[in-house]
Amino acid sequence: MPFPLFPASAQAVDAATVQLNLDFVWIVVAAILVLFMQAGFTLVETGLTRSKNAVNIIMKNVMDCAAGALVFFAVGFGLMFGTSSGWFGTDGFFLSGIEGQDQMWTYAFWLFQAVFAATAATIVSGAVAERTKFTGYLLFSIVITGLIYPVFGAWAWGGLFNGSGWLEGLGFIDFAGSTVVHSVGGWAALAGVLVIGPRAGKYGPDGKPRHLAGHSLPLAALGVFILWMGWFGFNAGSTTAGSSEIALIAMNTFLSASAGAVVAMAVTWLRSGKPDAGMTLNGVLGGLVGITAGCANLTPGFAILTGAIAGALVVYASLGLERFVDDPVGAIAVHGVCGAWGTLAAGLFDAGGFSLATVGVQALGVVAAFLWVFPLAYGLFTLIDRIVGLRVEAHPEVLGLDLHEHAAQAYPEFVAGGDGYGVPDDEFIPAEV
Amino acid sequence: MPFPLFPASAQAVDAATVQLNLDFVWIVVAAILVLFMQAGFTLVETGLTRSKNAVNIIMKNVMDCAAGALVFFAVGFGLMFGTSSGWFGTDGFFLSGIEGQDQMWTYAFWLFQAVFAATAATIVSGAVAERTKFTGYLLFSIVITGLIYPVFGAWAWGGLFNGSGWLEGLGFIDFAGSTVVHSVGGWAALAGVLVIGPRAGKYGPDGKPRHLAGHSLPLAALGVFILWMGWFGFNAGSTTAGSSEIALIAMNTFLSASAGAVVAMAVTWLRSGKPDAGMTLNGVLGGLVGITAGCANLTPGFAILTGAIAGALVVYASLGLERFVDDPVGAIAVHGVCGAWGTLAAGLFDAGGFSLATVGVQALGVVAAFLWVFPLAYGLFTLIDRIVGLRVEAHPEVLGLDLHEHAAQAYPEFVAGGDGYGVPDDEFIPAEV
Amino acid sequence: MPFPLFPASAQAVDAATVQLNLDFVWIVVAAILVLFMQAGFTLVETGLTRSKNAVNIIMKNVMDCAAGALVFFAVGFGLMFGTSSGWFGTDGFFLSGIEGQDQMWTYAFWLFQAVFAATAATIVSGAVAERTKFTGYLLFSIVITGLIYPVFGAWAWGGLFNGSGWLEGLGFIDFAGSTVVHSVGGWAALAGVLVIGPRAGKYGPDGKPRHLAGHSLPLAALGVFILWMGWFGFNAGSTTAGSSEIALIAMNTFLSASAGAVVAMAVTWLRSGKPDAGMTLNGVLGGLVGITAGCANLTPGFAILTGAIAGALVVYASLGLERFVDDPVGAIAVHGVCGAWGTLAAGLFDAGGFSLATVGVQALGVVAAFLWVFPLAYGLFTLIDRIVGLRVEAHPEVLGLDLHEHAAQAYPEFVAGGDGYGVPDDEFIPAEV
Repeated sequence: MPFPLFPASAQAVDAATVQLNLDFVWIVVAAILVLFMQAGFTLVETGLTRSKNAVNIIMKNVMDCAAGALVFFAVGFGLMFGTSSGWFGTDGFFLSGIEGQDQMWTYAFWLFQAVFAATAATIVSGAVAERTKFTGYLLFSIVITGLIYPVFGAWAWGGLFNGSGWLEGLGFIDFAGSTVVHSVGGWAALAGVLVIGPRAGKYGPDGKPRHLAGHSLPLAALGVFILWMGWFGFNAGSTTAGSSEIALIAMNTFLSASAGAVVAMAVTWLRSGKPDAGMTLNGVLGGLVGITAGCANLTPGFAILTGAIAGALVVYASLGLERFVDDPVGAIAVHGVCGAWGTLAAGLFDAGGFSLATVGVQALGVVAAFLWVFPLAYGLFTLIDRIVGLRVEAHPEVLGLDLHEHAAQAYPEFVAGGDGYGVPDDEFIPAEV
Repeated sequence: MPFPLFPASAQAVDAATVQLNLDFVWIVVAAILVLFMQAGFTLVETGLTRSKNAVNIIMKNVMDCAAGALVFFAVGFGLMFGTSSGWFGTDGFFLSGIEGQDQMWTYAFWLFQAVFAATAATIVSGAVAERTKFTGYLLFSIVITGLIYPVFGAWAWGGLFNGSGWLEGLGFIDFAGSTVVHSVGGWAALAGVLVIGPRAGKYGPDGKPRHLAGHSLPLAALGVFILWMGWFGFNAGSTTAGSSEIALIAMNTFLSASAGAVVAMAVTWLRSGKPDAGMTLNGVLGGLVGITAGCANLTPGFAILTGAIAGALVVYASLGLERFVDDPVGAIAVHGVCGAWGTLAAGLFDAGGFSLATVGVQALGVVAAFLWVFPLAYGLFTLIDRIVGLRVEAHPEVLGLDLHEHAAQAYPEFVAGGDGYGVPDDEFIPAEV
Repeated sequence: MPFPLFPASAQAVDAATVQLNLDFVWIVVAAILVLFMQAGFTLVETGLTRSKNAVNIIMKNVMDCAAGALVFFAVGFGLMFGTSSGWFGTDGFFLSGIEGQDQMWTYAFWLFQAVFAATAATIVSGAVAERTKFTGYLLFSIVITGLIYPVFGAWAWGGLFNGSGWLEGLGFIDFAGSTVVHSVGGWAALAGVLVIGPRAGKYGPDGKPRHLAGHSLPLAALGVFILWMGWFGFNAGSTTAGSSEIALIAMNTFLSASAGAVVAMAVTWLRSGKPDAGMTLNGVLGGLVGITAGCANLTPGFAILTGAIAGALVVYASLGLERFVDDPVGAIAVHGVCGAWGTLAAGLFDAGGFSLATVGVQALGVVAAFLWVFPLAYGLFTLIDRIVGLRVEAHPEVLGLDLHEHAAQAYPEFVAGGDGYGVPDDEFIPAEV
């Protein structure tokens, strides 16, 4: 770009236009932060699983974002925000034809929403890690981004012109998506792990779960810090306007995450005698998920309380769920359970005053999300399993998805079988593992 | 800083001043994002090469940025944006003496441009990795940042007061630098690899290329996500103004990258039966490079098409080039080839309507970049080779540049020869490798 | 959030309100960048130490941020910015009761300051790494965030209504905290390493220091890049306003860091014959710490000079200190020494003209910080040592803090004793090391 002359002299703008420009800057900056959360999810999922499946997780997350963006451009955005009678939108596909909206504003809002949709998809990725076929996962990712997420979104956030989404119309509070994004992802993840089943070796002969450690806690921790940063865009960006309100939202986001981390650490410390790092990191995420619904309508004290309870929930829900389902990264506890809790908390602690009706609507939203997402995702995973197959065979699973699905290794120099000089050929792959 | 009183009451500002302040905020935020791209390049290059050369790559990237900033402050910015008769600027060195410009605005614009210049340099780093002497590389990095990049930049973007750069004057469209930054870096990389030659072991006795795998795909993937994020600053920041236009640019950037990733994955899947992760990641980058020229004058549909073609180009250009030159990270395909393609696409798909003249000017710009950069870089690499030596000896190359050039190891605990207790002394270095 | 209608038509705002909204956006964006610096510190400290202590470092950094936020919310902010007679604030605890301030503005400023407080704490983490009990560290972290840092902060930045902090009243220049944040952290780190003593194996039988190499230079380098990026928020955000001044500050920040890197590299190259990567990375940080005080009142040339001297100081101070104290990451040299230097440089090179009185006040501030922090931190570390114990036993230290303090390993697959299938139980821990 050419060096522009000092622009002040050339400008004859009014304050409303400048405010609008500020809104564009803020929404784009926030969208960039949310996009970067994909890197955070990738690292958390990669770090908390074994190195033999790292390439596969990277591919899944890149595609959640890349294929997701194209699908949400073509279909999802219209279903979610097009003209609606309360259930789903019927125009706006390919970003065309939403009447009454400025084109640039639609573009900015699409960008912000597209990265949200990718987030819902990527939550599932971690839960089904280490045993799912790439093709099957990709199909699911496309459907959640293009259909499952947008339709629920239309209930809670859509319906621009003809009234509003039916949940929205009841007064449902979910400012940035504890339910719309996180519980939707979490319940889809629950369906996925039920259909796919646990990883080989997860449960001992006695049926008790064993801890299959991830391969890099530093990568996982970096991922959590990236998510922590990105969540400010997620929550404060949901104002879609550069306004003073973002201060309250950002502060609440910070405090809730902090309380989640401290409480999750304390709970593990009291339970086992040592502060557990993985749970503490998931405590940060639980606190973030928990405050997402109520970040704009809770006082700081209740933000801390919401995060603290989320931090405890993460630990107990992870341990409880582990007895029944194998979720390598704790996605169901973090996103599903804490998302539901955060949605209730947004009603319980509403700074506008307690109202049983409000809490009831919040509970209704939580239930509606489960009832819409879980059966549909369960059916879809089952269908994919029947048609293209969802789970890799036993041998490739033990060998690692990276070699089988992508003919690659994440760290050829560092792990057994790697020679540091390229993709192993067939001789490297042991016939029996 | 002291806690400032709530500023509203103290302010008596007009809208034009506020817009200007917004422009400052936006350009600084965008510059920060572009600076962070250096981390992305570092990780991509480090991850896609072997661990024995990781310290060297880190040093090169830090210096591209650090030495580059000082050189661009002293010389480059003046050559690129100083008063010019169309070929190069003649004032503004050390940021002094650009008349008619506000000083603070010059500072902001310098900051944004300095991180662009560092990008052009760092593209070369990956291509010549694993066999280049640090001293020789450092000399080249200084010259590209201080001379090669700024002079071409003056043709396309410079010439503030006395007319404009000659390419600019013809109507050349390169909004954020598909050619100015990326092809310039790519063609310099091509010159570098031709002069330096391939890495030991790259070509078998039959002359066929072998795949020398990098040591950490997770680091490479994180690097790509960082670049993806930073690119929003690169493209949308090139407005140098906080305006609604950034919505279109950011959306196009996202869509093109997504299409590049999907198509690169699909091509490798069809070719080899498995979706390839390295190519998919380079598909993201190819899509980003491709949309850089036309991000502000293409509709979303053509942004997708531009990225899709870039994704295919990355795969085929990488495979084609690999038969002749050894570019460990695919920099020439990603930045050189996709940069040229993106520049043509900005003319072919111009939302203002197709015009053969426009396409011709775009092609002229592509050719001009090659003719300016390639011979000059080739000569410069050859000169450096004669004077200080460009390539390390065979033994240190096999041993790794880190020990030889920096007396260090990236991972002393994890690799052969590391003892986990410090820099290996001479006894650790095997006489024969 | 529902898709908002194009907001322009609904807006009737005046320019002062828009400027205020811009200030909110800028301070929140800057705070996000500073928060992300915690990831940078985590990676620098993790990368420059051994993998057996990586989980411990991650836990310390997460808690610096998480527990720090809660403590700074409850106590620290009030002590630092509450109504004060020059020494410490007496209201504003739990963010309540600061009269005359807009609530949202207080929230925004708290957010920005909270991440600063966490930075001061985390500086200590690296210096005392690899031998400190988690409980002892956590106690110290809470006290520095809640008491040591805020009280000095009140002297230099606090005192909103009743006059000002006593140092501030004398004209002390420390724009973004070379002394307030970095030296405070650095002198606390010095106290810590003196009380705790060196790591096992740091000094040979002859009393000479040995280099205990870190385990991942790529992680450390990524950390430095993250800090480099975040520092733009740290320095330019300290305007607390979206204004043209941020251009000067950001440019100075970039130039000083660059000069620090180049000079640190040059010094090691001249001393040992090879450019040293660890020192070059710390040169970046030294340049950043050095410019933090004077980023807003130095010209670019003096910013370069300040950074260049900081780069040399980092090398010589690290080497000099290493003979007496064991600081695994060089935190005392980077933050303590360069913080003091930067504070002096802000007086020496003041663009407003040289004045001996100004330099005297700067020196007074440097001395005051040392006299407040060092004895207090020394006493506190001693007290913690007496009550809960500060240092782990010899056996767990050699084994690594991760197993002993957190029952975890950072890389179970890659290091000796890891089996890739979970947290080692007692059988894995050798009785003798």
